[in-house]
Amino acid sequence: MFALRNQTIRRFPLARFQSTFKIPEMQKGVIFETHGGPLLYKDIPVPKPKPTEILINVKYSGVCHTDLHAWKGDWPLAVKLPLVGGHEGAGIVVAKGESVTNFEIGDIAGIKWLNGSCMSCEFCENGDESNCLEADLSGYTHDGSFQQYATADAIQAAKIPKGTDLAEVAPILCAGVTVYKALKTADLKAGQWVAISGAAGGLGSLAVQYAKAMGLRVLGIDGGDAKKGLFTQMGGDVFIDFTKFPKDKPEDMTKAIQEATNGGPHGVINVSVSEAAISQGCDYVRPTGKVVLVGLPAGAVCKSPVFQHVVKSIQIKGSYVGNRADTREALQFFSEGKVKSPIKIIGLSELPKAYELMEQGKILGRYVVDTSY
Amino acid sequence: MFALRNQTIRRFPLARFQSTFKIPEMQKGVIFETHGGPLLYKDIPVPKPKPTEILINVKYSGVCHTDLHAWKGDWPLAVKLPLVGGHEGAGIVVAKGESVTNFEIGDIAGIKWLNGSCMSCEFCENGDESNCLEADLSGYTHDGSFQQYATADAIQAAKIPKGTDLAEVAPILCAGVTVYKALKTADLKAGQWVAISGAAGGLGSLAVQYAKAMGLRVLGIDGGDAKKGLFTQMGGDVFIDFTKFPKDKPEDMTKAIQEATNGGPHGVINVSVSEAAISQGCDYVRPTGKVVLVGLPAGAVCKSPVFQHVVKSIQIKGSYVGNRADTREALQFFSEGKVKSPIKIIGLSELPKAYELMEQGKILGRYVVDTSY
Amino acid sequence: MFALRNQTIRRFPLARFQSTFKIPEMQKGVIFETHGGPLLYKDIPVPKPKPTEILINVKYSGVCHTDLHAWKGDWPLAVKLPLVGGHEGAGIVVAKGESVTNFEIGDIAGIKWLNGSCMSCEFCENGDESNCLEADLSGYTHDGSFQQYATADAIQAAKIPKGTDLAEVAPILCAGVTVYKALKTADLKAGQWVAISGAAGGLGSLAVQYAKAMGLRVLGIDGGDAKKGLFTQMGGDVFIDFTKFPKDKPEDMTKAIQEATNGGPHGVINVSVSEAAISQGCDYVRPTGKVVLVGLPAGAVCKSPVFQHVVKSIQIKGSYVGNRADTREALQFFSEGKVKSPIKIIGLSELPKAYELMEQGKILGRYVVDTSY
Amino acid sequence: MFALRNQTIRRFPLARFQSTFKIPEMQKGVIFETHGGPLLYKDIPVPKPKPTEILINVKYSGVCHTDLHAWKGDWPLAVKLPLVGGHEGAGIVVAKGESVTNFEIGDIAGIKWLNGSCMSCEFCENGDESNCLEADLSGYTHDGSFQQYATADAIQAAKIPKGTDLAEVAPILCAGVTVYKALKTADLKAGQWVAISGAAGGLGSLAVQYAKAMGLRVLGIDGGDAKKGLFTQMGGDVFIDFTKFPKDKPEDMTKAIQEATNGGPHGVINVSVSEAAISQGCDYVRPTGKVVLVGLPAGAVCKSPVFQHVVKSIQIKGSYVGNRADTREALQFFSEGKVKSPIKIIGLSELPKAYELMEQGKILGRYVVDTSY
Repeated sequence: MFALRNQTIRRFPLARFQSTFKIPEMQKGVIFETHGGPLLYKDIPVPKPKPTEILINVKYSGVCHTDLHAWKGDWPLAVKLPLVGGHEGAGIVVAKGESVTNFEIGDIAGIKWLNGSCMSCEFCENGDESNCLEADLSGYTHDGSFQQYATADAIQAAKIPKGTDLAEVAPILCAGVTVYKALKTADLKAGQWVAISGAAGGLGSLAVQYAKAMGLRVLGIDGGDAKKGLFTQMGGDVFIDFTKFPKDKPEDMTKAIQEATNGGPHGVINVSVSEAAISQGCDYVRPTGKVVLVGLPAGAVCKSPVFQHVVKSIQIKGSYVGNRADTREALQFFSEGKVKSPIKIIGLSELPKAYELMEQGKILGRYVVDTSY
Repeated sequence: MFALRNQTIRRFPLARFQSTFKIPEMQKGVIFETHGGPLLYKDIPVPKPKPTEILINVKYSGVCHTDLHAWKGDWPLAVKLPLVGGHEGAGIVVAKGESVTNFEIGDIAGIKWLNGSCMSCEFCENGDESNCLEADLSGYTHDGSFQQYATADAIQAAKIPKGTDLAEVAPILCAGVTVYKALKTADLKAGQWVAISGAAGGLGSLAVQYAKAMGLRVLGIDGGDAKKGLFTQMGGDVFIDFTKFPKDKPEDMTKAIQEATNGGPHGVINVSVSEAAISQGCDYVRPTGKVVLVGLPAGAVCKSPVFQHVVKSIQIKGSYVGNRADTREALQFFSEGKVKSPIKIIGLSELPKAYELMEQGKILGRYVVDTSY
Repeated sequence: MFALRNQTIRRFPLARFQSTFKIPEMQKGVIFETHGGPLLYKDIPVPKPKPTEILINVKYSGVCHTDLHAWKGDWPLAVKLPLVGGHEGAGIVVAKGESVTNFEIGDIAGIKWLNGSCMSCEFCENGDESNCLEADLSGYTHDGSFQQYATADAIQAAKIPKGTDLAEVAPILCAGVTVYKALKTADLKAGQWVAISGAAGGLGSLAVQYAKAMGLRVLGIDGGDAKKGLFTQMGGDVFIDFTKFPKDKPEDMTKAIQEATNGGPHGVINVSVSEAAISQGCDYVRPTGKVVLVGLPAGAVCKSPVFQHVVKSIQIKGSYVGNRADTREALQFFSEGKVKSPIKIIGLSELPKAYELMEQGKILGRYVVDTSY
Repeated sequence: MFALRNQTIRRFPLARFQSTFKIPEMQKGVIFETHGGPLLYKDIPVPKPKPTEILINVKYSGVCHTDLHAWKGDWPLAVKLPLVGGHEGAGIVVAKGESVTNFEIGDIAGIKWLNGSCMSCEFCENGDESNCLEADLSGYTHDGSFQQYATADAIQAAKIPKGTDLAEVAPILCAGVTVYKALKTADLKAGQWVAISGAAGGLGSLAVQYAKAMGLRVLGIDGGDAKKGLFTQMGGDVFIDFTKFPKDKPEDMTKAIQEATNGGPHGVINVSVSEAAISQGCDYVRPTGKVVLVGLPAGAVCKSPVFQHVVKSIQIKGSYVGNRADTREALQFFSEGKVKSPIKIIGLSELPKAYELMEQGKILGRYVVDTSY
């Protein structure tokens, strides 16, 4: 059922921004007023784009663990309240501010975690926009994609080729870009080994596919035969089932990984949320190798013995989210069909249920909300 | 005498952009209507900033050879007409568009060659804004700094620390950034040798200073004892006077350069406008070394024998102008006093005379115009 | 027929080097005494390894255009005379000098263009061994692989995994490593476009496969439908048949290449021996892209207009031969089956005929000599 | 008094290696037979170089904390016993194996921590020789420089220019190269900020000088006015005296460092042996900055909160010892006078006393032993 019927339709005055679409004044969205408070699916006003923003009619939006953290407010980073969450939204540009030159009405655009940044500080200048001290974050400090109409800074908004499946592309905008960025951060050469810890989860299964598309040899670490099956299907080379190794003798698994990779992987991508997995990565990584931290286990500390760190000359690199170039490239791999995005679609109205499942750790794969119901 | 008296003073409406300065409607500027046509010092309207632009009250502007090319229209790149030239302007922000967040009224700002770019293409995303296909160029496709009030895209405009000498900093905004970028493009390590061909000219003398500040050993190539003296004063290490070598035996000078650098410089920066100098750089550069092209001799072709190019594994890299990060860094070296900018100040009204001298090849050092007379 | 029967067999004294193989005093080889002089297939002494060398019983050796240049002496680099050519030899280690610790008797080893280098100069220290001023070149300054037993510096000799097809691997040792190195020199990211000029020749068809294994999108340039077929079979993406474009309007082909790659390839690998192809690469390459020179057209000069070179910020990089790491990596791709090496096997005794065909430009694909007949 | 008188003098047979020097059969050295056992200054045989080694008449050798660890055997890495320690030796090449081509008798050579490596594994091929699994370590697995004559692999031995002060250059061979390597590992650009934790110690005072020679801005952290004075004398820019901040409020010092560097240093070099200093470095480093681990506090663990590590996108990089290229470059800075090495000379016979002082933590500056008494 189409959510917009019976609503007052109007066009924003053209003096401020162009649009040929009919844009309603009110829309459906999921909003919360306090941390941990009720997630309300209700009528909220359609936001108005600033001169440098576009207004996107969000069709689909991925649901990410970060959304849970924003709702709970358990990260050491202040959240806007009340808040509409969501930072993996794909839709159509229906209006744009007067300064916007890089999008046309009707273009397909994506909302990313980084909604906008100053573009003028040392970090922005060097392409590290996500490290900008004034970064504006979708579904965190800026109302996000869990609504039918959302605004995004035109410079940061993702350009999505026409003809793309808007539901499938949604998780690429954050999950896909994030693992692709992590793989770039590992700075590996085609033919080298990368280990992916948490290889068959939502991030992991994307990471395996990006790694293969980059010419890497991929060792995946996860637990159980179902995970192994998924890993193999994604093109992974060697699977290490951590449930088959004694927990009290991590050196056994370390040895198995080093043997399978002829001395340890050149890079390790930690998308798991296990503190122990991070430390173990520092053990089994090849000398001169790189351990890339992506997953954010609550309160976790990365621990690495200094002697080994120095003598093996390893690197531990934090990788946050991708920049504009990373986004373009990650989308390109998706468009070429080199990366598939397995999703489960639910209605935006069902989102509160999804939060519940996430909190219970019962969610499997990537949920995507359809904003139309 | 203050050029603005007797003019109508008004403030731009604040609905569009903020300003606490009194901004006139008319100003003095130097403008030409046709290529090679008269350069008129006259009253022209003060431009209005777009929502993403700042309006700068230009105090000083450097004069560059590129300005001559824009006037003559002899480059294979279309020029706006009529045109106010100039792309090395330093002044005070007196107004800003409503979307501008990175500048405050009263800040010191600089106008660069790259006035603005799309910030959204593959090149902009990778920090190669000057390669943007929609690049807007000061004093070329956008009225430049040879006027008292000029507009600049806020993202691209240079941030200049308060307290900076606005006359001396002007040439840093193009000449300084350009040679600094070229040195970065050469990708050398502190302690390595760089040769600068045209070492005692306007660009060269800045290049020598930047190279020294970067920890390089500098060999300069230029002609005559006066040039040698200037080179030494700038901190250069070894001077090669090309007038002392036979023109028909370039191998003599090549040998001298290779001996002085124990096998050839690791990098060569060509700021000269001599086609022969470029080819010779490919000869004397160290194996695995880099020849960086900066100077633009009219119609010149870079020629390098393929066998030597491959077996010596050299690189010939074109370096255009710096991006935002390069600009920030180049200004930083200037602010710390590691780079001095020797200038000669004239009035904006005297600019046509400076073009004449440039065309006759009679200009020495860097001219800077004071916009107040 | 086995070439060694009727020869005196002896073991080298173990005091000098270890061997459990029976090594003859004489062997078959192809040798020439003067440039352009007769290529004689005859009995010659088996060389003795120095303390740092291994002696390889060469089973197969690739035949390369460089062998023709060594024979004719038409390169500006002195050649040892008399000379046994060949620098793509695969065989078994049958003896080793007393200082050799990295090879065991019975190992599979490969002879590369770079037989040995000083390991102690600035170039060797940085992994640029092929630029060592004391580089010792197989089949050029050191008797090469066109004999049954050849010596190689143990540090430079290639390690080939047991079980490898010695005939097929032979061309990888030079042709494969060379194009792989060129692709590394282009410094591209997976997903970017590389153009390969001469895509269906001996080097080109290997380059296409390496490029695909590195995750690149490959545009190939060559002439004719047979070439197109081979290119497609190797996994290439877009083929440009230069015979279908007017020679006097190179801009037509330039335009076609730029359209197919959405703005020009990010890298160009020139394995053709056409001077015009090199210049054209500088035209169609994407801004900020890299043109890599590999092929060595006799007396050719690479020409690039300075204005375009600078404003497009392109790089022209010479790529010579791979170092030890490049060799290991190139062999790894071959071992994994990601790169196939199409060859035609002839007897060592038939080598003079192969030189004749090469000189006439009639050779197709890669010839490999079997040293046993 | 010359230690060699009354000893039998002979020349090694030239068939094995060349020498025009008279080399004794016995020499003075300091040797120990068990971990923690007596350090005996006594007559020991002069070692004989292998075909790939040189024999160096060590004139001076630096004394390093690592020597203490080798003697105590408290590192997780097996030590040769009995052992002659020392890995910072400078002297004259008096003999060389028959395969040695890169040294001549009479050359000046240096003994480094890495005495030799296989040159053939993945690590050696990539210039990471210190990570070679078969690395041979001076004064650890190979008798070192605390003797009058020591052997070194010719490829790894350092080349020291004639005319160099052999006492002052000794500490450069390990301490100097190590900090220079760490600075290279930090991968900073000239003009950026580096913090050196332990800035006025043996390693630190060299690090400050190298950092300045590389064009960096240097913030030093150490305790006390004497240290501050030394730091300033070495050219450091900003000194943070950790004794002036409350230990229980590390955020105060963090804030002071970030203010002094306008947002945190771009790189941090930890030459201190404090575990807490390492963690603090991860706090105050600038976003996207690099923390380089060099010092080896016994049993220390580097701890970094994962959330901060990721969101700030920092890197923690282990830096071990320099390779051949690092050594050449570090020596070059010393030769040019850009780095001074403050030393205190004692006799080799006094070495046991120096170990005692080191163990008591009473040693100040860098001790160098003169092997002649």
